[in-house]
Amino acid sequence: MHAPFHTIAIIGLGLIGSSIARAVRSSLPEAALRGYDADADVRRRAGDLDLVNIVTGSAADAAAGADLVILCVPVGAMAEAARAISGSVAPGTMVSDVGSSKAGVAAALRDALPGATVIPAHPVAGTENSGPEAGFAALFRGRWCILTPDDDAPQEAVERLSAFWAALGARVEIMDAAHHDMVLAVTSHLPHLIAFTIVGTASDLERVTESEVIKYSAGGFRDFTRIAASNPVMWRDIFLANKGAVLQMLQRFSEDLFHLQRAIRHDDGDTLLDLFTRTREIRRGIVEQGQDVAKADFGRVPEEQAGSDAGKR
Amino acid sequence: MHAPFHTIAIIGLGLIGSSIARAVRSSLPEAALRGYDADADVRRRAGDLDLVNIVTGSAADAAAGADLVILCVPVGAMAEAARAISGSVAPGTMVSDVGSSKAGVAAALRDALPGATVIPAHPVAGTENSGPEAGFAALFRGRWCILTPDDDAPQEAVERLSAFWAALGARVEIMDAAHHDMVLAVTSHLPHLIAFTIVGTASDLERVTESEVIKYSAGGFRDFTRIAASNPVMWRDIFLANKGAVLQMLQRFSEDLFHLQRAIRHDDGDTLLDLFTRTREIRRGIVEQGQDVAKADFGRVPEEQAGSDAGKR
Repeated sequence: MHAPFHTIAIIGLGLIGSSIARAVRSSLPEAALRGYDADADVRRRAGDLDLVNIVTGSAADAAAGADLVILCVPVGAMAEAARAISGSVAPGTMVSDVGSSKAGVAAALRDALPGATVIPAHPVAGTENSGPEAGFAALFRGRWCILTPDDDAPQEAVERLSAFWAALGARVEIMDAAHHDMVLAVTSHLPHLIAFTIVGTASDLERVTESEVIKYSAGGFRDFTRIAASNPVMWRDIFLANKGAVLQMLQRFSEDLFHLQRAIRHDDGDTLLDLFTRTREIRRGIVEQGQDVAKADFGRVPEEQAGSDAGKR
Repeated sequence: MHAPFHTIAIIGLGLIGSSIARAVRSSLPEAALRGYDADADVRRRAGDLDLVNIVTGSAADAAAGADLVILCVPVGAMAEAARAISGSVAPGTMVSDVGSSKAGVAAALRDALPGATVIPAHPVAGTENSGPEAGFAALFRGRWCILTPDDDAPQEAVERLSAFWAALGARVEIMDAAHHDMVLAVTSHLPHLIAFTIVGTASDLERVTESEVIKYSAGGFRDFTRIAASNPVMWRDIFLANKGAVLQMLQRFSEDLFHLQRAIRHDDGDTLLDLFTRTREIRRGIVEQGQDVAKADFGRVPEEQAGSDAGKR
């Protein structure tokens, strides 16, 4: 397809930035790619991986001459990254980001870049791995990318950025930033906070050893450890940036947990059974809408082994 | 290998019971298999699937003449199942189970079956699916099976049951029942309770629709929905049976969650970063010890698609 942008600058070359670079190379090969990362070692590795046409020595150099600049840094580093490019972004240049919280980031970008066309974005995709080596072109395929343009954002700009993400395989949704932050607090931030917590709780026990926690993790715990292995800095920043919505969701969650705790204490099996029956339906919806694999246990037992062979996993 | 048992009766033909049947067929083909399920429809389906040599009309008929009887019913139904076979179990017959909580189940089995050799067991394996169709022979491969024999259990019996589970591909561990219940409360029961809770919380929100929860679940939430889709009756029973340990773990978890909540409220990023860095290590241990796949995102993006092709997931 015809590239919606000619020169794309990616600031931050971790999992998401490097995946965007790979996806652009694959789906929009006409576009020129410039990249920068604040970490010199990441810049060197990005060069070795040949992720972009030019790895620059500063964010300003990467942004100069680009018609799309995407900030792929932890949300706590967005303001600084925006200030770093402010001198080299021509008026009307589109600046976007990939942050998991939007209202605060949007304000920071607009403050630092008054002349730019700021359209915040959030591709709801990722893995527990970090760094430029962890990225891959298919990361955004079939996943949603949420754009949160201001009311006065040029329609043409929103459409161009939508076309960009669609070209990378994403499904695009437009949403108000505050609503985005509420939705993501429940579908992403709260689950991560809970996962970080429970993994910490398990590793702090005196009467159960860490090696026991690891050995018997197939009973459910291991599922939580995956998202609790995500980038620590990125997640610290998200919780601080989306504080209001996260605290609100935590309050709801705690109430619901105390309700179940009370049901267990009082042998109220009906309350437990009602909830557990209801939660099955949600899973069904997620699988039906292609947001997760339908395979049992996330397909951990390969289908060819779910038969009768004697090989070990 | 030479079968450690000649005739095995499986009471309860759901995910675990039917997986045992399949694994015995595959790894111990000399053993005769009898099966029973309290649900007539499950008995019929088990017959259609040819899971066992004979599907009997009662638990007593299945147990008669068996040298190993395995109760594969929800832990709340164990006492009744044990009473149902009490008249047909010859003195010294080995009776075991697969329940996820052990102290209470062990007491119930010993009460109902004073003449039998009771060796409780818990294969730490499963998927979110239920029913005889969901089982597969490889379910126990590389997973741990915990035996919780009494101090006065015959050593020979413990060894025979260990050999049985090893033949099915499991790694066997011997443990005190009370310690088992504490370990599993943290590695399995608490994670399930948290997952059920958060899925319930998400589906009860007024300002975020259920369809939004489903659409954006790839941000982390979908991982929780998998275990929240597990068998509701089985899980109700586990929480009631292992009440003491579950409530104790819940208390620890709540304290830790409030600690993080407070850190977020007071912008204490260091507390968050410290924990999030520590939790990464636990994941590493689980992957290194073969208790989870090393693939990013549980391998949801197949490796051949993590490249540059244009196909959809």
